[in-house]
Amino acid sequence: MEKFQPPTLEDVARKAAVSTATVSRCLSRPGTVRQATRERVMQVVSELGYTPNFGAQAMAARRTNTIGAVIPTMDNAIFAKGLQAFQEEISSRGASLLVASSSYKKDLEEKQIRALIARGVDALLLIGDDRDEEIYEYLAKRHIPYVLAWNHRKAASHTYVGFDNFQAAYAMAERVLQHGHRRIAMIAGITEGNDRAFDRRAGVRKALSDHGIADADFSVVECVYSIDAAGDAFETILGTGRRPTAVICGNDVLAAGAILRAKAMGISVPGGISVTGFDDIELSTVVDPGVTTVHVPHRRMGKTAATVLFSALKNRQPKSRKLETHIIERQSLAPPAS
Amino acid sequence: MEKFQPPTLEDVARKAAVSTATVSRCLSRPGTVRQATRERVMQVVSELGYTPNFGAQAMAARRTNTIGAVIPTMDNAIFAKGLQAFQEEISSRGASLLVASSSYKKDLEEKQIRALIARGVDALLLIGDDRDEEIYEYLAKRHIPYVLAWNHRKAASHTYVGFDNFQAAYAMAERVLQHGHRRIAMIAGITEGNDRAFDRRAGVRKALSDHGIADADFSVVECVYSIDAAGDAFETILGTGRRPTAVICGNDVLAAGAILRAKAMGISVPGGISVTGFDDIELSTVVDPGVTTVHVPHRRMGKTAATVLFSALKNRQPKSRKLETHIIERQSLAPPAS
Repeated sequence: MEKFQPPTLEDVARKAAVSTATVSRCLSRPGTVRQATRERVMQVVSELGYTPNFGAQAMAARRTNTIGAVIPTMDNAIFAKGLQAFQEEISSRGASLLVASSSYKKDLEEKQIRALIARGVDALLLIGDDRDEEIYEYLAKRHIPYVLAWNHRKAASHTYVGFDNFQAAYAMAERVLQHGHRRIAMIAGITEGNDRAFDRRAGVRKALSDHGIADADFSVVECVYSIDAAGDAFETILGTGRRPTAVICGNDVLAAGAILRAKAMGISVPGGISVTGFDDIELSTVVDPGVTTVHVPHRRMGKTAATVLFSALKNRQPKSRKLETHIIERQSLAPPAS
Repeated sequence: MEKFQPPTLEDVARKAAVSTATVSRCLSRPGTVRQATRERVMQVVSELGYTPNFGAQAMAARRTNTIGAVIPTMDNAIFAKGLQAFQEEISSRGASLLVASSSYKKDLEEKQIRALIARGVDALLLIGDDRDEEIYEYLAKRHIPYVLAWNHRKAASHTYVGFDNFQAAYAMAERVLQHGHRRIAMIAGITEGNDRAFDRRAGVRKALSDHGIADADFSVVECVYSIDAAGDAFETILGTGRRPTAVICGNDVLAAGAILRAKAMGISVPGGISVTGFDDIELSTVVDPGVTTVHVPHRRMGKTAATVLFSALKNRQPKSRKLETHIIERQSLAPPAS
């Protein structure tokens, strides 16, 4: 097979018998070209399958009208709703979104960020803030505005559009205590490289310590965000030491896994053990009993992140936005059996 | 703020006091450059935040080592597992994946396809085959290999890596009949522009007709893939004519919605009504009762699609691959109460 040469602006101009400048104007400012000429040119553009060269166009316009996002995983619903809202806001402004996934791997995330920038994205959505300082320096050098979502800190060095994971987890732990639980376990996400998981674990630990729960009455198991892994973590917790009366989970996937395994082991929820989640994704309403969880305003976060990025692209100083979370009580949390 | 000019190859060469050819070699064939020179050059590359220009690199290599995918939605788990496996296979070969979502809109899908190609993707993953012929002509003109996943036909005009939705839905309808059901309803996805939803509805209809079920004993409601919409469709079905004893759902999201609404209405599943799904995503094991559904080999489909695309990029003629599905019996399907 011959090497394929993509059609060039020159090819279009030659075939349409016009200058390259006219072809350019047909594509970028069609109103400035006579209708007959424009139609002939667009016909040739279509026949040849010509696509304006990205590089040349970007040089001319300094904007590709494309936003990039790197998310840790596509394999569960944690980021789905927020990302969909982000995409809708971007589309409504006539821009495109390109998404890459890092599989929760730092080196892969860095590679994806560089790949997106090499492909000319104007701005980036990233999740959380736990990454090497070099990446932020690289983004600054390239003048790529970025927003960090799914977390929020008062730190002035980044633009966040998210919520305070520590605070939200602290509030959930207090709620569990209010129900009378004193022996509590946590199934946390892998905290290494994941500031959201780290902050949630820290928030729970701080709340328990502030309320005088001894370290011996609090155990933590970390696991990946999967139903099966959470089930195994739940069994591990029940197999070691005194059984807790409540298990606080780092997110709803973990809570669903804990509840399903409890049922499989013949332990009723919340009668035998209470379970709580985090995120308020659909899963938390589908599992039986419904999961008492932290509601995260996913759609608002996605839309706001897009708004902030677009304002940064207009050279306005982007401002962090803190979104509030609240606890949704369903059936999985109740006072311990006495 | 001054307009930012990204550093060029020339900037790097000047600062490192070498030729641009040497900088190029450091980046593309580092083994051919003396270590001291290479280290000096890479130091400058890092300092300036230089990223090899996509356009120039693509011109030189004719490959950007990036694969694109356009999926209908990121807002539920239907495509998550398959896409994650697709991404893992692509990463393992040192390439990157960029994903765009079309929100099930034809015009948006076309725009996303053109945006990905303008950004230089080498090959594309698309879902199903229901799109305007012009798009396929455009891909052919641009010599962009593509694979259509989540469906399979014997048609020779496309490369499919997927399964036969008609056949799988036909088999599920036969299974429902084997359990003794004779009044059957279907909650289908929106079939307009969605060949998978269309084929599933057609498969169910054909099976029922082949087994002598009268049209009056089969009703279909179409709705978007959401738990709430499926719940509403379920109520609609129960409010019209004679109550069916089984509801065949176009996918697991719809089945979960039907089951949750049935329970909310005080109708037990499968005692009062049977429900089936399609896809075998995690949701089908989380809902209570577990959903009897069509198992789709999501991970194998994603990995195979990547393999076929890479072989097409080596100028081998890509071959369609048909994957088998099978029914997983859980608890949501049982004989009708007599």
